[in-house]
Amino acid sequence: MKSYSKNQLSRYPVYLRVLQHLQKEGVSYVTSKALSKEVGNSEEQVKKDLAAVSLSNGMPGRGREVASLIDDLETFLGYRESTKAVLIGVGRLGQALLDYPGFRETGLSIVGAFDSDPEKIGSNIGGLKVLPAKDIATLLPPLKAKIAILCIPAAQAQEACEEAVKAGCIGIWNFAPVPLDVGDSAIAENVNLASSLAVLKHRMKSILKEE
Amino acid sequence: MKSYSKNQLSRYPVYLRVLQHLQKEGVSYVTSKALSKEVGNSEEQVKKDLAAVSLSNGMPGRGREVASLIDDLETFLGYRESTKAVLIGVGRLGQALLDYPGFRETGLSIVGAFDSDPEKIGSNIGGLKVLPAKDIATLLPPLKAKIAILCIPAAQAQEACEEAVKAGCIGIWNFAPVPLDVGDSAIAENVNLASSLAVLKHRMKSILKEE
Repeated sequence: MKSYSKNQLSRYPVYLRVLQHLQKEGVSYVTSKALSKEVGNSEEQVKKDLAAVSLSNGMPGRGREVASLIDDLETFLGYRESTKAVLIGVGRLGQALLDYPGFRETGLSIVGAFDSDPEKIGSNIGGLKVLPAKDIATLLPPLKAKIAILCIPAAQAQEACEEAVKAGCIGIWNFAPVPLDVGDSAIAENVNLASSLAVLKHRMKSILKEE
Repeated sequence: MKSYSKNQLSRYPVYLRVLQHLQKEGVSYVTSKALSKEVGNSEEQVKKDLAAVSLSNGMPGRGREVASLIDDLETFLGYRESTKAVLIGVGRLGQALLDYPGFRETGLSIVGAFDSDPEKIGSNIGGLKVLPAKDIATLLPPLKAKIAILCIPAAQAQEACEEAVKAGCIGIWNFAPVPLDVGDSAIAENVNLASSLAVLKHRMKSILKEE
């Protein structure tokens, strides 16, 4: 299997978003140079990244066809196949994820939701009946979800992670602000919004200096 | 000013989170090797990253003091200074951000919230009185916010971004699934959750292959 770095993989959804935006604006062809300006990476990197996932070479001067690049990226990212996931924790963040428009297109299909709040259990949130978190061991396996999305407080995250892995999940998408130990039979990806904020704040310094 | 790559900057909040977790567990000293295992980067990279922001060298065999590393990272990341921000869009995602526990420690102080929904305007959400989005031009400047957090649909994001920049924001933290044109007097940082999901799904393939 060809291997891609974490950074390279992270760039593909960004290319895709820009390309979808261009397509909406009626743009049919795009050069690597134009794309590199939109995403803020070097032209060299854009060329290399696209060559790794797309066979279309584009025409000199005109560039690559936007529609076929979108096609190639969606295929590469697995957006065309549905991946079953469960949401563990349906507080504000969990509900926001169910709503998130940039999210539906990724192919992630949320087939179950768990929470420990008695007021939420049994209620219908985003089309899903909320199931009791204490019964993950028995109620998760029949859902055949491969990904568990953790939107719970840090103190509960490790336990929920272990239960989800035991119940058949091999991917943990962790929004709880704590590192997790998932063992060797699963993968955890931590979402740390503070990382994105750190980049923004640091880059703002250059503007503050000019003022 | 010393320059840091986007990737390097992104790693510091991850180190910080792991260190805070170790501190809670009663760990007082940590080696680069132990830290590299926790964060999943090479030991060489951990050493280089920490040397760039911390003067403490640590003791051979014992490692660096966790508390002083936390101190150095929080100072470097500007968590000790308050940065004023406004929230534009107080739907589920906006409200989830107000609640997000990993968020309060970053030094971001949310001093205002705007929305265009008449039912939300005037109400109190997360301790903030929601202000009408149509009046950003007059109501935002007195708040002296440097960052605007956009939690609105893609179609409204560019306009809101331009208004926020005109009203004095120099940083746009964009959660809308669309690229923004901010001009030269501001910085935009786009949060693309699909990037994190792409990394997770790709890494899961190695486990699916073994099964």
